[in-house]
Amino acid sequence: MSTTTSPHPAPPERASERPAQERKEPTYLFTEKYVTEKSEIARRFLDSRERLNANVDKANNFLVKRFYNIDHNAYLEGTLPAKTKELMGLVASACLRCDDCIFYHAIQAYRLGVTRAEQEESLNVALIVGGSILIPHLRRAYELFEEMYG
Amino acid sequence: MSTTTSPHPAPPERASERPAQERKEPTYLFTEKYVTEKSEIARRFLDSRERLNANVDKANNFLVKRFYNIDHNAYLEGTLPAKTKELMGLVASACLRCDDCIFYHAIQAYRLGVTRAEQEESLNVALIVGGSILIPHLRRAYELFEEMYG
Amino acid sequence: MSTTTSPHPAPPERASERPAQERKEPTYLFTEKYVTEKSEIARRFLDSRERLNANVDKANNFLVKRFYNIDHNAYLEGTLPAKTKELMGLVASACLRCDDCIFYHAIQAYRLGVTRAEQEESLNVALIVGGSILIPHLRRAYELFEEMYG
Amino acid sequence: MSTTTSPHPAPPERASERPAQERKEPTYLFTEKYVTEKSEIARRFLDSRERLNANVDKANNFLVKRFYNIDHNAYLEGTLPAKTKELMGLVASACLRCDDCIFYHAIQAYRLGVTRAEQEESLNVALIVGGSILIPHLRRAYELFEEMYG
Amino acid sequence: MSTTTSPHPAPPERASERPAQERKEPTYLFTEKYVTEKSEIARRFLDSRERLNANVDKANNFLVKRFYNIDHNAYLEGTLPAKTKELMGLVASACLRCDDCIFYHAIQAYRLGVTRAEQEESLNVALIVGGSILIPHLRRAYELFEEMYG
Amino acid sequence: MSTTTSPHPAPPERASERPAQERKEPTYLFTEKYVTEKSEIARRFLDSRERLNANVDKANNFLVKRFYNIDHNAYLEGTLPAKTKELMGLVASACLRCDDCIFYHAIQAYRLGVTRAEQEESLNVALIVGGSILIPHLRRAYELFEEMYG
Repeated sequence: MSTTTSPHPAPPERASERPAQERKEPTYLFTEKYVTEKSEIARRFLDSRERLNANVDKANNFLVKRFYNIDHNAYLEGTLPAKTKELMGLVASACLRCDDCIFYHAIQAYRLGVTRAEQEESLNVALIVGGSILIPHLRRAYELFEEMYG
Repeated sequence: MSTTTSPHPAPPERASERPAQERKEPTYLFTEKYVTEKSEIARRFLDSRERLNANVDKANNFLVKRFYNIDHNAYLEGTLPAKTKELMGLVASACLRCDDCIFYHAIQAYRLGVTRAEQEESLNVALIVGGSILIPHLRRAYELFEEMYG
Repeated sequence: MSTTTSPHPAPPERASERPAQERKEPTYLFTEKYVTEKSEIARRFLDSRERLNANVDKANNFLVKRFYNIDHNAYLEGTLPAKTKELMGLVASACLRCDDCIFYHAIQAYRLGVTRAEQEESLNVALIVGGSILIPHLRRAYELFEEMYG
Repeated sequence: MSTTTSPHPAPPERASERPAQERKEPTYLFTEKYVTEKSEIARRFLDSRERLNANVDKANNFLVKRFYNIDHNAYLEGTLPAKTKELMGLVASACLRCDDCIFYHAIQAYRLGVTRAEQEESLNVALIVGGSILIPHLRRAYELFEEMYG
Repeated sequence: MSTTTSPHPAPPERASERPAQERKEPTYLFTEKYVTEKSEIARRFLDSRERLNANVDKANNFLVKRFYNIDHNAYLEGTLPAKTKELMGLVASACLRCDDCIFYHAIQAYRLGVTRAEQEESLNVALIVGGSILIPHLRRAYELFEEMYG
Repeated sequence: MSTTTSPHPAPPERASERPAQERKEPTYLFTEKYVTEKSEIARRFLDSRERLNANVDKANNFLVKRFYNIDHNAYLEGTLPAKTKELMGLVASACLRCDDCIFYHAIQAYRLGVTRAEQEESLNVALIVGGSILIPHLRRAYELFEEMYG
């Protein structure tokens, strides 16, 4: 639609993915504990998640462990910043409508210093793509925002 | 999981959303025409999209027009850069498994100067969240990448 | 499959959509308060919805407000009666499996005078299209019906 | 939201579902053949559907046959008119994003005399509930409308 | 990928489906009561399911009854053992992310003598196909496994 | 529902998952080439899949490679036979409505010696769980069955 273009820019580079060894853990500005002190919703969610994950860990299922590992890898600092990828996780979770996943990525994004406006704008993309069926999830996300950022 | 945190950072600001009047059209580095000359897949997709949208425009349906308008708004420069939001649109489209939508956002992201590595990393988030059912869409996206960035 | 047809009917008219100004608020036969007095499920749902929407309203997010507005518009009296569109909202909500959305549209339909048999028949379309994965939602909808119509 | 209510209306009746024997085949105003002469999209879809269904019929699978039977039943004249239920089938199909199913119900609705404006308004409910991910399907539906009603 | 093949095997037979009259109820090794005594989660789920189904039964909706009947049929002993089909129901429920349905099929599978390892391996297929969005459901399933098999 | 139970069976064992080193490649009774000679649909699908996967392989994306690897692992001989897990993959693919994935697992199952009746019965579980929205996919699957088993 827009036709505003620079005259002769070089095409976007075919930059190859950052090598595995360069991927690294993001630096969290806030601990989970900090978030649970600000937000009761976060506290209840993280407690329940920890309790239930203990069962999964105990089962020691080979494939589940590998899946958890690759899942962890997908949100590390890489070609894109961890912040951006947590917000993408938020968008994906909202589109697929999973409250637990929305809470998880919203908390992670918060811990990385993402502002509320950035979280809201990400959810707007999800809302437009996924429709009004997302509204109940949006409401619950805003309740969490209110507690975390309020 | 990670507990690396700064000692006493200020909580993320409750920055309010950028006022509507500050939202503005992104600057595309490449025209649609440029992309269609590089990629046959992009050309076919954009031609078909244009032809079919003509029908929708002709119908002049009030609600559809408003929806298209709000949809357009969601990807403008805002608190988050348009590039990031196009990539979020890509993630959402991949999770909800719509080839047309994947193509659209991948082309838009390309036009804004997003690298292939950034597109791939975005799709990785979608792949982990949405599972192997996305693989056929991933394959078709990589074919488009090959043509656009090749 | 059926081949029972009238001999030479005129094709369905290409009636254009009712102009925006003709869309109008439906006339509710029952207040929300009336429904909450009959149904504890409705009361809990509407209370929680109101409380959570207050957060969303306070955030005053431009795009969310526009989305809510267009969402409101979609169910007004139009070419199709509001009753029919609330039932379509019910079918859509059931297919996409959102209890909150099912409750919302079932309550709205009730307030417009829709009978229980009409609600059940609408859910039957959803059940056939969407499969047994809808059954838990169907059960919860029938519980609400029992309270509202009982 | 709206509080316009009649003073003391009787609650919606708990009308029980129309007994099975009262359900009956709807009266189609137009044959499938009529539609295929107006629309090339309809023709291709119905031909392919018929050809593929022949395989399914030949397989003579007990459960599939029963499912087809119950599926057929869901759209008969009942408490709600067949027209309304075909439009609900359209909404459900659009929300779950299946072009074949959208085409099928749009054609059935057309054959029952549903106007284009009614079809568009039904799709608007689906679009709001299901989001922009439906737009490619909307475009293809409007192309079919153009041929059938044009 | 693998090319390990027998030299000249006969093609898989086109065995026709087991005739309806040969389908029969599976033999449960354990009663529902046995399961509810081992697992509080199972008890709460089955109690709530029974209570809510009573409403559905009372409504006596023709199409719902037929759907329940065909649903029941799909899991009988047939060409495939009931155990396998309950596990398929588990996979389907996990992919479509319905906790109630996951609990139901996990309990049914347990009652038929399925081991925990078999349940976990089935969920692994679902996890890979459906992605990390399934993880919260996986956690809740493992909690049920812990109680049933613990 | 059924209450037929053995008197005092031992509870299902908490058998732990088969150790990783015991997972092994299944023995295919038929090569892909054999299938492509019987079925034109299989040939076109497998050719296109191979061509598109070449692009993905060339991109050499670390996370994608790991995901493909874990995906491969999920269908090896394990606690459950590979045949059963391919059929579970078929059910999952049908429920999530991806033709490519349905074709893939139906072909894999065929190569492992699964009969047509077993494939149909698996799809029946998917049809009941996922609803009539699966019917177009069912039709295309039966066309493939017709060619492979015909």
